[in-house]
Amino acid sequence: MRGDPFGLHRVIEPKGKLPQPAWKIDNDTSKIYDNEILIDVIKLNIDAASFTQIKNEAGKDESKVAEKIMQIVKERGKMHNPITGSGGMLIGKIKKIGKDLKIDANEGDKIATLVSLSLTPLNLKKITKVHLDKEQVDVEAEAILFETGVFAKLPEDMPESVALAILDVAGAPIQTARLVSPGDTVLVTGAAGKSGVLCCYVAKKYAGPTGKVIGLVHSEKSVAELKNLKIVDRVMVSDAQDAVGTYKKFMEMNGGELADVVINVVNVPDTEMASVMCCKERGKVYFFSMATSFTKAALGAEGIGKDVDMIIGNGYAKDHAKFALEIVRENKKLYELFLKRYG
Amino acid sequence: MRGDPFGLHRVIEPKGKLPQPAWKIDNDTSKIYDNEILIDVIKLNIDAASFTQIKNEAGKDESKVAEKIMQIVKERGKMHNPITGSGGMLIGKIKKIGKDLKIDANEGDKIATLVSLSLTPLNLKKITKVHLDKEQVDVEAEAILFETGVFAKLPEDMPESVALAILDVAGAPIQTARLVSPGDTVLVTGAAGKSGVLCCYVAKKYAGPTGKVIGLVHSEKSVAELKNLKIVDRVMVSDAQDAVGTYKKFMEMNGGELADVVINVVNVPDTEMASVMCCKERGKVYFFSMATSFTKAALGAEGIGKDVDMIIGNGYAKDHAKFALEIVRENKKLYELFLKRYG
Ligand SMILES: NC(=O)c1ccc[n+]([C@@H]2O[C@H](COP(=O)([O-])OP(=O)(O)OC[C@H]3O[C@@H](n4cnc5c(N)ncnc54)[C@H](OP(=O)(O)O)[C@@H]3O)[C@@H](O)[C@H]2O)c1
Ligand SMILES: NC(=O)c1ccc[n+]([C@@H]2O[C@H](COP(=O)([O-])OP(=O)(O)OC[C@H]3O[C@@H](n4cnc5c(N)ncnc54)[C@H](OP(=O)(O)O)[C@@H]3O)[C@@H](O)[C@H]2O)c1
Repeated sequence: MRGDPFGLHRVIEPKGKLPQPAWKIDNDTSKIYDNEILIDVIKLNIDAASFTQIKNEAGKDESKVAEKIMQIVKERGKMHNPITGSGGMLIGKIKKIGKDLKIDANEGDKIATLVSLSLTPLNLKKITKVHLDKEQVDVEAEAILFETGVFAKLPEDMPESVALAILDVAGAPIQTARLVSPGDTVLVTGAAGKSGVLCCYVAKKYAGPTGKVIGLVHSEKSVAELKNLKIVDRVMVSDAQDAVGTYKKFMEMNGGELADVVINVVNVPDTEMASVMCCKERGKVYFFSMATSFTKAALGAEGIGKDVDMIIGNGYAKDHAKFALEIVRENKKLYELFLKRYG
Repeated sequence: MRGDPFGLHRVIEPKGKLPQPAWKIDNDTSKIYDNEILIDVIKLNIDAASFTQIKNEAGKDESKVAEKIMQIVKERGKMHNPITGSGGMLIGKIKKIGKDLKIDANEGDKIATLVSLSLTPLNLKKITKVHLDKEQVDVEAEAILFETGVFAKLPEDMPESVALAILDVAGAPIQTARLVSPGDTVLVTGAAGKSGVLCCYVAKKYAGPTGKVIGLVHSEKSVAELKNLKIVDRVMVSDAQDAVGTYKKFMEMNGGELADVVINVVNVPDTEMASVMCCKERGKVYFFSMATSFTKAALGAEGIGKDVDMIIGNGYAKDHAKFALEIVRENKKLYELFLKRYG
């Protein structure tokens, strides 16, 4: 039997909604439809905003984090954090390909899903290990990918956990490449993070020798890490939740000029206005952070009369996975950082 | 003495935040700074979401609504509804212009503020009348506009309440003009609403004779109203909260083609995915609706592998007020509709 290509057939509540906005979906993996893929899950990569929220609530206790994740999946049939609204992704082995699907992969292949966990039916049996530092969770579980779901075969030239970390944020570097033009001044907030370093590298590549990339980091330890990569022109330390303070520091560092493009890849809320204030009139602010509030951005920009284009970070873009993996392959230091952090 | 251009000098709690996100601001209008404007307020236009919330709580009782508004302003120094997070705008007469300001207006001029009430210091003395149907409130009050605050002189060729209605949604038509190119197929969801009709008219103007504008309305009564304006090529009736149903109807109506640009100006939540699904690959979705959820848009588009640019509707754009007023002036039927609804 064929299911709906978007997965409507697995929505329990409310009926008629797509699986992502739905509250609860059917995670019964004992039956699979002819246009679904069944996955034997190895690891979940929880979205940074979601993991931070859970970690704060559970007090950095591995077993409590595990408990909280089990509870969310039990309630919703998917790892969809009700507070942050975000999910994450997973890696696993293809266990079964529905007979109606023609895809470029075989049963047994290791893949990463490129659609959010917030819409992926997940039959979570057991959490074997929580990696608090990597935002990854080893599990015994099965998951379902719908016909319109996107996935990537795991590359063989890097550890799984490294590929997972890169693919998790694959939307950000390619969108950065689309937004940045030669000569641009680019501010990346959250620059030493997982997506941050990818965005910095791409921004510098596309801004070129006449452009300038400034990486904003929060903690002192990030300064050395980012500088060592040699992918930004300047590093500034600031709290992006302090909009006016960040704006003043940025102006000072950049000779009184604002940025053409601001890329927001932090993992905490209330950083909309720092991004908006550091952007020049008719510049572009790209919000990849899942902690972005639509109303705070829209009313905040209006409140200071700032005519900027604000873009919602789409997790998907054509060929984003390939682009992100290649970006890391072409820069040795970048690869080494990912290996050190996530390998 | 000069105040901070963004109004930081009037923030009481928490210190350092901008006036919009701040909980409480200083509404003492007996002192004004040299870069502030003091306004003698005539009318508040409470944001629709906020007014509805208050009306529901107060039971549609004029005096109770008034009481609630007085209470919020007393607590926060601004008309910033703590539940909806939104404000509104005001009209009034300029009472005093700080000596450091060079602006194109004089004391005595009637103006509308184009920044949200959620950041405007308001010294509210008395509410003389609550217009439950128009979401407007006649008051005796004084307000402060900061140096970066935007305002518009009230036009003399139309009733105040009509100008107020147009200026309330002034961001939408000019952003539509920026996004639409000749030959584009444009879908406007919420097409018969206040911003909807403005966006439809502008979309048709910029898409031109080789383009096509389709207006999506919800209620049957809106069909005739929109058709009568003769500003769209087609009208379709659908519930934008039903993403898949709307997508199917749109595909059928448009010969299996998707839209280049989708403008979302509905006033209810959960319409992100109808907009995303009706947009073609690499098309643009403009979210003006304040009920838009950032995560639903970002993860929803990713979830169906849809590579579209999604834009947050900035309430401000350079010359947006002038643009919106001129748009209505140049089309007689449009003006008559506003006169009928808000005059
Ligand atoms: N749109 C999408 O589809 C999508 C997909 C995946 C992820 N995301 C989002 O992208 C964001 C980044 O993800 P990630 O995995 O790259 O996160 P990450 O590796 O955890 O990095 C986040 C960075 O934010 C910085 N930061 C935290 N608080 C800050 C503050 N107050 N001021 C300035 N910087 C601060 C941290 O800097 P320090 O270490 O120096 O403190 C850290 O480097 C997250 O919000 C995530 O939800 C979006
Ligand atoms: N970004 C900003 O700065 C800013 C500024 C002002 C306003 N806004 C927002 O812009 C939006 C529109 O404002 P407005 O004043 O133009 O609103 P409005 O005049 O109330 O119009 C809203 C329209 O949405 C339609 N609608 C309601 N439910 C629907 C559904 N389920 N499916 C399809 N259409 C539906 C209604 O159609 P029917 O009448 O046919 O039911 C109505 O015509 C609001 O969300 C408002 O918050 C944003």
